[in-house]
Amino acid sequence: MKITLAQINPHIGNFRENTGKMAGIIQAAEKEGSDLVVFPELSVCGYPPLDLLERKEFIDDCFREVEKLARLCLHTGVIVGAPVHNPAQAGKNLFNAAIFLYQGKIHQVVHKTLLPTYDIFDEYRYFEPNREFRTVQFKNKRIALTICEDLWDDQPVEQVFGKNRLYPVSPMDQLSALSPDLIINIAASPFSFRKMEAKKEIFTTRARRYGIPVFYVNQTGAQTELIFEGASKAISKTGKIIKELAWFTEDHFSILFEEEKTSGADLSVETKDPIPLIHDALVLGIRDYFRKNGLSKAILGLSGGIDSAVSLVLAVRALGSANLRVLMMPSMFSSVESVKDAEKLAENLGVRYDLMPITKAYRQFEKMLDPAFQCRDPGITEENIQARIRAVLLMAMANKFGHVLLNTSNKSEAAVGYGTLYGDMCGGLSVIGDVYKTDVYRLAEFINRSGEIIPAGSISKPPSAELKPGQKDTDSLPPYEILDPILYRFIELQYPPGQIIQEGFDAKTVYRVINMISQSEHKRYQAPPILRISSKAFGYGRRIPLTARYKWHG
Amino acid sequence: MKITLAQINPHIGNFRENTGKMAGIIQAAEKEGSDLVVFPELSVCGYPPLDLLERKEFIDDCFREVEKLARLCLHTGVIVGAPVHNPAQAGKNLFNAAIFLYQGKIHQVVHKTLLPTYDIFDEYRYFEPNREFRTVQFKNKRIALTICEDLWDDQPVEQVFGKNRLYPVSPMDQLSALSPDLIINIAASPFSFRKMEAKKEIFTTRARRYGIPVFYVNQTGAQTELIFEGASKAISKTGKIIKELAWFTEDHFSILFEEEKTSGADLSVETKDPIPLIHDALVLGIRDYFRKNGLSKAILGLSGGIDSAVSLVLAVRALGSANLRVLMMPSMFSSVESVKDAEKLAENLGVRYDLMPITKAYRQFEKMLDPAFQCRDPGITEENIQARIRAVLLMAMANKFGHVLLNTSNKSEAAVGYGTLYGDMCGGLSVIGDVYKTDVYRLAEFINRSGEIIPAGSISKPPSAELKPGQKDTDSLPPYEILDPILYRFIELQYPPGQIIQEGFDAKTVYRVINMISQSEHKRYQAPPILRISSKAFGYGRRIPLTARYKWHG
Repeated sequence: MKITLAQINPHIGNFRENTGKMAGIIQAAEKEGSDLVVFPELSVCGYPPLDLLERKEFIDDCFREVEKLARLCLHTGVIVGAPVHNPAQAGKNLFNAAIFLYQGKIHQVVHKTLLPTYDIFDEYRYFEPNREFRTVQFKNKRIALTICEDLWDDQPVEQVFGKNRLYPVSPMDQLSALSPDLIINIAASPFSFRKMEAKKEIFTTRARRYGIPVFYVNQTGAQTELIFEGASKAISKTGKIIKELAWFTEDHFSILFEEEKTSGADLSVETKDPIPLIHDALVLGIRDYFRKNGLSKAILGLSGGIDSAVSLVLAVRALGSANLRVLMMPSMFSSVESVKDAEKLAENLGVRYDLMPITKAYRQFEKMLDPAFQCRDPGITEENIQARIRAVLLMAMANKFGHVLLNTSNKSEAAVGYGTLYGDMCGGLSVIGDVYKTDVYRLAEFINRSGEIIPAGSISKPPSAELKPGQKDTDSLPPYEILDPILYRFIELQYPPGQIIQEGFDAKTVYRVINMISQSEHKRYQAPPILRISSKAFGYGRRIPLTARYKWHG
Repeated sequence: MKITLAQINPHIGNFRENTGKMAGIIQAAEKEGSDLVVFPELSVCGYPPLDLLERKEFIDDCFREVEKLARLCLHTGVIVGAPVHNPAQAGKNLFNAAIFLYQGKIHQVVHKTLLPTYDIFDEYRYFEPNREFRTVQFKNKRIALTICEDLWDDQPVEQVFGKNRLYPVSPMDQLSALSPDLIINIAASPFSFRKMEAKKEIFTTRARRYGIPVFYVNQTGAQTELIFEGASKAISKTGKIIKELAWFTEDHFSILFEEEKTSGADLSVETKDPIPLIHDALVLGIRDYFRKNGLSKAILGLSGGIDSAVSLVLAVRALGSANLRVLMMPSMFSSVESVKDAEKLAENLGVRYDLMPITKAYRQFEKMLDPAFQCRDPGITEENIQARIRAVLLMAMANKFGHVLLNTSNKSEAAVGYGTLYGDMCGGLSVIGDVYKTDVYRLAEFINRSGEIIPAGSISKPPSAELKPGQKDTDSLPPYEILDPILYRFIELQYPPGQIIQEGFDAKTVYRVINMISQSEHKRYQAPPILRISSKAFGYGRRIPLTARYKWHG
């Protein structure tokens, strides 16, 4: 049996584009004698459709496209993902389904059993879990057809509760009793550079445990915050990865079911460097946000610092330099070097830039506020005014010329609230809001690996917001080499403060950092969507009540 | 048996304050000879704790407070709500539990079966559902102890899928087989003026169906967006509401189990006018947001229009006029009447106001942008600049003097994106963001019911953003009497466009409105938390993908 792994980048709700793409692949696969073409989870509607799943017309339209597609699938079997109605009188409206198309009609429908409902996943909001287990009989093979999480019954333990079985049911334990010949897993599994090894192991251990090969087809492309790496895989029954599809782009490949038995290669031994993957993920994230929303042009404020520099490089790689425009908006506190570094970067990249000093506008606001402020000492208010004037200018340019403002805040500063709401926190999309500052440096090094693109000055100078004379980030924050590991342990690993302190971090610093995180939840509530590359990003997947008074302690 | 319904307003995470409050009520109830004191769902930690439930230290701290409380409960039985660990090796980490305290210890623990996971509810994110059914034996009575949604197995049909059974299990059907004498339901059921009748019916029909009385204890108070009305109830076995506790405030009341049999009153026949309830809900929403976050002072921009007027009145009622401050920020397009109406309202309410005309700042931005704009015709960009200058001033005042900026956008404009991101869409909390414009008028009439507080001019003049000469809302939008019913049908009722058109609305207008909604999802993504009073508010409970291209059609 020849199986085609068809890793596509669907557009949510754009059923015709998605099924058009599928039809092309099916026809090509049929020509080359493929028996079975496998598309990702919810590939007809794109993942995650979120509350569009609550619209009956959305579900019905989607299903009509599945039926049209079925008519094309004559000699080749095709597996697509789509939501289907739950006909039972009780339970959720829908199932998350793998639909097997063959001989011009729907041959079999398999429902997802394990519905991830944590972090960025809300599947139980929409779907009823499957409770019946059957294999799919196709051309003398019994296929254990599973959907994404269905293979994740045995989760990697990564939190303090220590449980590794999130679900009381194991779909593959049920299916293996029916003696399947192979496992197919259709997925929409988003990228996290922290979970690459864990994800690989899910498939290799399942292949070994059940002694049958696994064919895993993942979605690629980005849907707002979520970036899907693709990297679909064929795994032999001994747990060897014998084929891996491309990362962060559409790809398809046909493999003989028998082939996996003889292949000698094992790609699972390879360990990937996360920084180039994060780079590629973010470029895809920007590109798809623009393309799928019918946008092309972006603008950002270039300060001469490393955050806006890295964001600009990524944006240029995603959209092309002709689609970028940047503003330099120095105040009385901006250093000459910063402006020069910013200019140099824009020139290196061939990006159009404008210089708009903000001092006059700042003086104007000072004058307007003077009667109310009555000679109070300047402080954070005045720093915020500078950041907000820049936002007004950037948004004015964006509105006038049809640009989208890119936000250039990093995860470290977003975490501790070191940023101005409606100022530097503005933007339609946050490029590096899930990248800790120390990783932003690593990205800059990677970008400069074969020659200086980002000026050395942007990388070497001590981080500063330049909102008052001689300001340094370290005036208000612990050094990033201390801050970032504390943030990672608290946010991603969810360690209690005591556990972080036990690892050797200074107790006062740990509590100070945690308090800064708690006290800035209200700022992050209004932040733009953040391209997600970690296992816990700010935004949709992290839901902390704004109105809470919990005393963090040992 | 004497039962005390103890409707408290917990503060999320503030375990000691919550249990301190409980201890006081328990002691008083014991003195007056109460047998059983019933507190709301998750009353020890407050509802909804969201992802704080993922922190083991939070769960452990909470449970320690339950154990302390248990030692106080000697002769009186006490039911509290708290999350508890799930000891099983498989499944979610927690149960949502009703904990029965008696004789100085934990007497019995009952887990929630039906876990709402829709709209603003995410309970399956955290909790494992109960699968075992037992009554609680207490003083010769068998109690069917249920938690909120457990009684909602038979939901009111309110969506186009037409299903009224969201869950395959009915906890009360299971429990009724054990011949209980009464139902106790502890709840954290948020206010929705659209669901008042449905909620009442849940309890009265359950009492009748199972032929036993229902004692329902709901949380009160607000937690960011969510407002809980309290309104706890005692219902006789014939389905009469014989006692209802206060709305929107803490309250407790003791009732004899036998009493309900003899009472002749039936409060269920009473129908409440929603407008005064919305008024009270919003006042509580503002008050609790400030109080629970340790805040006291608010600021807002007063335009002379009805939205900021109503918002100010509500804020004054929540926080006191001494804690309010307003800015009037007329531009060259503001009418003299608007400024006068704004002044008059501030004077009526005794609120301090400052006048800060924005024209000079506007001219300054014009000058700064002139080289880039190169004499392009003014348009929406210039309107947005005015709104954003106002935001800079309001935030500067807020930052300098420790105010929180209140957002005064209504639901109609938020729905169609008729507002400026980082301009009039700014604020820490949106007061009327879940109130359609036509209901804002109703609120204004209610506020003025015994004398003019809001100047007549603010109510009678045609709505206008006053961002260009002679501008009216109806230049860009359908009249609110047309717009609001379309929005309600599309957003709350989730009707497909065709169904709205069938009801007699103009097809072109319906599609235009739906397109405006779709095209402004990115703006609402960055909006402040919105006090929720309807069955579908923007924010947390409505999750639409930003990157989607779905063609709405008949």
